Amino acid sequence: MRDVAIIGAGQIPVGEHWTTSLRHLMLGAAQNAMQDAGVGSVDALYVGNMLAGEMLGQSHLGALAADFLGLRGIEALRVEAACASGAAALRVGYLAVASGAANIVLALGVEKMTDTSGQETTAALTAAADAEFEVSQGISFVALNALLMQRYMHVYGWKREDFANFAINAHANGANNPFAMFQRPIKIETYVRAPMIATPVGLYDAAPVCDGAAAVVLAPAEYARSLSSAPVRIRASAVGTAPLAIHDRRDPLTLEAAVKSSQAAYRQAGIKPQDLDFFELHDAFTIMSALSLEAAGFAEPGQGVRLALEGEITREGRVPITTMGGLKARGHPVGATGLYQIVEATLQLRGLAGANQVPDAQLGMVQNIGGSGATIITHILEAMH
Amino acid sequence: MRDVAIIGAGQIPVGEHWTTSLRHLMLGAAQNAMQDAGVGSVDALYVGNMLAGEMLGQSHLGALAADFLGLRGIEALRVEAACASGAAALRVGYLAVASGAANIVLALGVEKMTDTSGQETTAALTAAADAEFEVSQGISFVALNALLMQRYMHVYGWKREDFANFAINAHANGANNPFAMFQRPIKIETYVRAPMIATPVGLYDAAPVCDGAAAVVLAPAEYARSLSSAPVRIRASAVGTAPLAIHDRRDPLTLEAAVKSSQAAYRQAGIKPQDLDFFELHDAFTIMSALSLEAAGFAEPGQGVRLALEGEITREGRVPITTMGGLKARGHPVGATGLYQIVEATLQLRGLAGANQVPDAQLGMVQNIGGSGATIITHILEAMH
Repeated sequence: MRDVAIIGAGQIPVGEHWTTSLRHLMLGAAQNAMQDAGVGSVDALYVGNMLAGEMLGQSHLGALAADFLGLRGIEALRVEAACASGAAALRVGYLAVASGAANIVLALGVEKMTDTSGQETTAALTAAADAEFEVSQGISFVALNALLMQRYMHVYGWKREDFANFAINAHANGANNPFAMFQRPIKIETYVRAPMIATPVGLYDAAPVCDGAAAVVLAPAEYARSLSSAPVRIRASAVGTAPLAIHDRRDPLTLEAAVKSSQAAYRQAGIKPQDLDFFELHDAFTIMSALSLEAAGFAEPGQGVRLALEGEITREGRVPITTMGGLKARGHPVGATGLYQIVEATLQLRGLAGANQVPDAQLGMVQNIGGSGATIITHILEAMH
Repeated sequence: MRDVAIIGAGQIPVGEHWTTSLRHLMLGAAQNAMQDAGVGSVDALYVGNMLAGEMLGQSHLGALAADFLGLRGIEALRVEAACASGAAALRVGYLAVASGAANIVLALGVEKMTDTSGQETTAALTAAADAEFEVSQGISFVALNALLMQRYMHVYGWKREDFANFAINAHANGANNPFAMFQRPIKIETYVRAPMIATPVGLYDAAPVCDGAAAVVLAPAEYARSLSSAPVRIRASAVGTAPLAIHDRRDPLTLEAAVKSSQAAYRQAGIKPQDLDFFELHDAFTIMSALSLEAAGFAEPGQGVRLALEGEITREGRVPITTMGGLKARGHPVGATGLYQIVEATLQLRGLAGANQVPDAQLGMVQNIGGSGATIITHILEAMH
């Protein structure tokens, strides 16, 4: 199995791209990544996307991307794992390079969610949950997360306000990220006074609906230094799953799939959680941040929120998270999110994160969640100096 | 790169499974494949599916399958390339085993298309074409193929009836396949008198809408003989693409993506077309059979139809195709089709194809097409005696 490295990373600003088509979103991110890598073509590409079929009537994004990017004829497939589709595309790209089937591969994530009504988007997103046993009850995706947050508060005795720092930290970092959808810091009063979406999930507990695309170029690690001045090695790549429906899980407050994929990633990289300089987790909802910190081994069950309360999630803290704004402030174009996280981690490991730079970042973990935790994909990245 | 083999194959009958849910379709095929392989678990699974998100409100089939098959926690992703989704899932499974990331892998294709109206199905299928530049004109998938057939007849001087043997051969073979949707032979009169769907595509030029699931279990070829009494080696695996929109292709009557992936597959296997004992091609429409025979090197441009006319596509002919009924008679549950083809090729190479057995079949090629030819995935399989 060959070692794999990232030799180029590219993104476009997250936002409401009403005048830019899906294919142009892909083109922007891919061109930036390929230019960064200094390559004019790739052997294969894998597209992470969740909703284009449902919302835009356009599936088959592999072939569409290959053609529109001017990469006529190459291998191209779409990979989907709900909101973890971006990391899933990276995973398949990693397998292609690791196997030797391809040398230079593009992993691209894209989503265009704002061309339809909010109701349609909410309905389409439920396809990530169990259609027959959850969605048939009338529950939305936000409502599923609201149930988890309510249960967490009930079992462990936390208040809504205790989650505020997850949003405050994300917005503080988003303010320094020119690609973020929201580039304004927020105060605790803003969080507290936010309108409820599905109690106890308020406006600042949930990531926004938006459009975006992000991409990385992969190559065998042994050639990476000759291709890039600042390559990043993929030290681990692991996918874990759990029952789609929350009611089928042993404990709704344990992200089994994150435990599995984090542990597998730590084994592959031969490291412990404490060795990581930062952790780009999947903060689609503040409750997911708390549960992710626990599942990855940074806190005991029920204590993930304490890390936020005590300031340990900031750049200076014990486990810096959402360092470029996270899903909350950078935005959550669902199928693209996993690759935005990877692009941002690459910036950190190259020392190019600007005002958000984590001091001396050498080793980072990135985790992308599909559904309410049914697919969780973990990558560990390391600077190759 | 490790050699990869199929150590188990399973399918369920193709048809209108109104009383069987999507997850039960997957379960049936997976259980048959795993029982055939003699394995109780797998390291990872990849699901090929095109339309469950659009038609059933259910995406995220990787996690759903892992849970419902009792394979809790394993790596599981969905792969999509329109009607080539089945072969795409096999391709990713192949990469996982070839790389060494996994040893035992399940590649599963599933589609459930008959729970909604025919109009909804027709609309959903257009997501395989170019939504902005083809579908926006009001064209359906059948109509796109009708344009190709009309053009082929115009350029090369064939009549509609000249295509009849593609349908007759498929139905003759389907009659001996207990898993086929249609198990009746047809006569040339039936073909000729068929109602038009989109002139010149008649009822017997087009594959039916249906439900089904099929699966194979993969393992490293070096261990395959110890795991299975009749393993089948994957000698080649290749994906080619072409512009999504037919009007963007250099020549609408050349399947560029099939030329690319066939040639790549021949190179990988070190063989010529004449070395193949059979060719499971993607006969979604009779015109696709003709174009596939040409692109794979069995006929000059415009002469694919002649192979059918002259009886060369039957079991006794020069290039036996659709040996178990093909998409026309076995049925075309779109995301599952690519794996039905692989399961049938495995039966041929094991000598288990019954009345449809191709004499002394040692080497077969399988080709799965997404859209009107934008993604074409080719595998070459060989018996391991």
